[in-house]
Amino acid sequence: MANPTLTRDPQLAVTGGVDRILADFLDDEITALAGIDPALVPFAEVIRDLVNSGGKRLRPTFGYWGWRGAAGPDGDVEPVLPALAALELLHTFALIHDDVMDGSALRRGQPTAHQRYAAQHRVPGRRRPAEHRGPAEHRDTAERFGTASAILAGDLCLIWADRLMSTAAVSASARVAARREYDAMRVEAVAGQYLDILGEATPGRWSLPRAMTVARYKTACYTVSRPLRFGATRAGSLASPYHDRYGFPVGEAFQLRDDLLGVYGDPATTGKPAGDDLRQGKPTALLLLARHLSTAAEWNAIQEPAALARLITRSGARAGVEEMIGERVRAAEAAIAEAPVHDAVRTALLHLARLATARER
Amino acid sequence: MANPTLTRDPQLAVTGGVDRILADFLDDEITALAGIDPALVPFAEVIRDLVNSGGKRLRPTFGYWGWRGAAGPDGDVEPVLPALAALELLHTFALIHDDVMDGSALRRGQPTAHQRYAAQHRVPGRRRPAEHRGPAEHRDTAERFGTASAILAGDLCLIWADRLMSTAAVSASARVAARREYDAMRVEAVAGQYLDILGEATPGRWSLPRAMTVARYKTACYTVSRPLRFGATRAGSLASPYHDRYGFPVGEAFQLRDDLLGVYGDPATTGKPAGDDLRQGKPTALLLLARHLSTAAEWNAIQEPAALARLITRSGARAGVEEMIGERVRAAEAAIAEAPVHDAVRTALLHLARLATARER
Repeated sequence: MANPTLTRDPQLAVTGGVDRILADFLDDEITALAGIDPALVPFAEVIRDLVNSGGKRLRPTFGYWGWRGAAGPDGDVEPVLPALAALELLHTFALIHDDVMDGSALRRGQPTAHQRYAAQHRVPGRRRPAEHRGPAEHRDTAERFGTASAILAGDLCLIWADRLMSTAAVSASARVAARREYDAMRVEAVAGQYLDILGEATPGRWSLPRAMTVARYKTACYTVSRPLRFGATRAGSLASPYHDRYGFPVGEAFQLRDDLLGVYGDPATTGKPAGDDLRQGKPTALLLLARHLSTAAEWNAIQEPAALARLITRSGARAGVEEMIGERVRAAEAAIAEAPVHDAVRTALLHLARLATARER
Repeated sequence: MANPTLTRDPQLAVTGGVDRILADFLDDEITALAGIDPALVPFAEVIRDLVNSGGKRLRPTFGYWGWRGAAGPDGDVEPVLPALAALELLHTFALIHDDVMDGSALRRGQPTAHQRYAAQHRVPGRRRPAEHRGPAEHRDTAERFGTASAILAGDLCLIWADRLMSTAAVSASARVAARREYDAMRVEAVAGQYLDILGEATPGRWSLPRAMTVARYKTACYTVSRPLRFGATRAGSLASPYHDRYGFPVGEAFQLRDDLLGVYGDPATTGKPAGDDLRQGKPTALLLLARHLSTAAEWNAIQEPAALARLITRSGARAGVEEMIGERVRAAEAAIAEAPVHDAVRTALLHLARLATARER
């Protein structure tokens, strides 16, 4: 009889269990915080809302298939679920801090964490009582409060992820190996994000290869290859070459799709305003390719995001990035074809490669 | 023959070993980052400079004495040093993020991390090349870059602390118990800091007991009692009642001293501008007591920090807070007098209680 967790739909394979673990964990943690001070409850509820706001659970999903690939069709997923759920809390940390750094207003169609915290404390007149206002006060209190709270909320998610991870029962040797993957994933995510904001601050010094380095670390390692490796190590195995040979191209293609959605996506589907990347001047692979393919006169004539989006299409960069995505999906397919995994794992990873790179949100 | 690490000067007992561990760890991590992209080196160097900028190493010191109290006079400190050093990296995370939240310009007499990152990318004219400037750009690029980099630098320190901690050899049972203390310490630090910024945003709703709750979690647990407990668990022991009975009052007194230094301290000694708390309207215990002890007319007449500092003295709040510190030091002394520890530990903790609460920086 087939193992019911080995469904062909990888989204369903792990999402239910992860959501249940996250709900229980957050309930316990919020209760503990309430014991310190009830004012911590609305602070933590914003995190819970974000966790529940319909994320794709991609990192737990790749972690699951990495684990399943190593554990075989009969392994029991239950003991590994807290570790997979921890990957989602880690991602919540990354989303909250990224949105602060980018000054983003929307995430998954809802106000971002820093916006929600600011709204909690935006009072009529937006000023503090006179007896507490210092002479050099010059920033809006609600906005400052929103940013500070979101920094702390991200910090808390990073700590919570760790705490949830450490509740999972695992052998000492698997724990050490999984920890190494987890730490590398976290460091690479921060390094990739730093390079991303550095590119945004110094776009004149950026190049297509550098944009692809960002995509490699910020997206491919963090979203695909490290979760696969992490999952395998939680099953007591070593990382396998297919984790990177599949993970790098799928993750890079995922980022390239993200670049396209940032310009051409439907805000109703992506949950983010269109053109944010363009407004921020983020030197994405898409933008760098367009600059390379257009003349200085064309480029300098651009005054607003919609015109830039049209130029990117006209230059051939949009089609070029689609081609880069296609190449990477084919490379991932070739890697998975010869990976030493059970057929259900192969089928799921092929499906995920397409899902992650042909998506509309 | 006396164990040489059982010196009477607790600052020297642990600082050398911790500094050596931190230097080696940061060297290795920065080399690894350089392998991703050389641009990550100046990013990480700011963290190294801050770690090396003469912190008091209070958390490793309390962690050390908690460990020594449980391990006895003959335990070898070497295996526990990475865990103690991790407490310092954790503190570096807290400093960097706190300075972003408070918008502080100086830390230990040097520009804060976000200021240093902004300076790295503040170029003449402060504008990005025209081809990358979006129409809605309205914030100074260097300032945005500084804030974003500092958020990431703090994140990296939090991750590094964890990574350093996991390199220490320790038995499985001690690891689980120490991890529980470490996680509680981190959550309490974030919770305390959130209450701190909430107080700053809503000072009219704040009270002296609430300010003392902040002092309990943000300072006493994080700086004294949890490091003591953490140290003891790393020695394979349970937490002892004296950890909290000594740690809470010492930590609270430490915070009260900090409140006084924030108003009356010498910037040349504290490394921070005088009056920052007053300018930010932070409802410290000192300020709340002064408001309670002065008339509305006196209070509302205040126009600038120096006048507020004089009113705080005149109201009796300065003396009142000195008295609160004295009470707490005596309570800590009473707790330590009956703690089941070796005399050298008792002597060191008595010394530290005075050092932490009678300090000038």
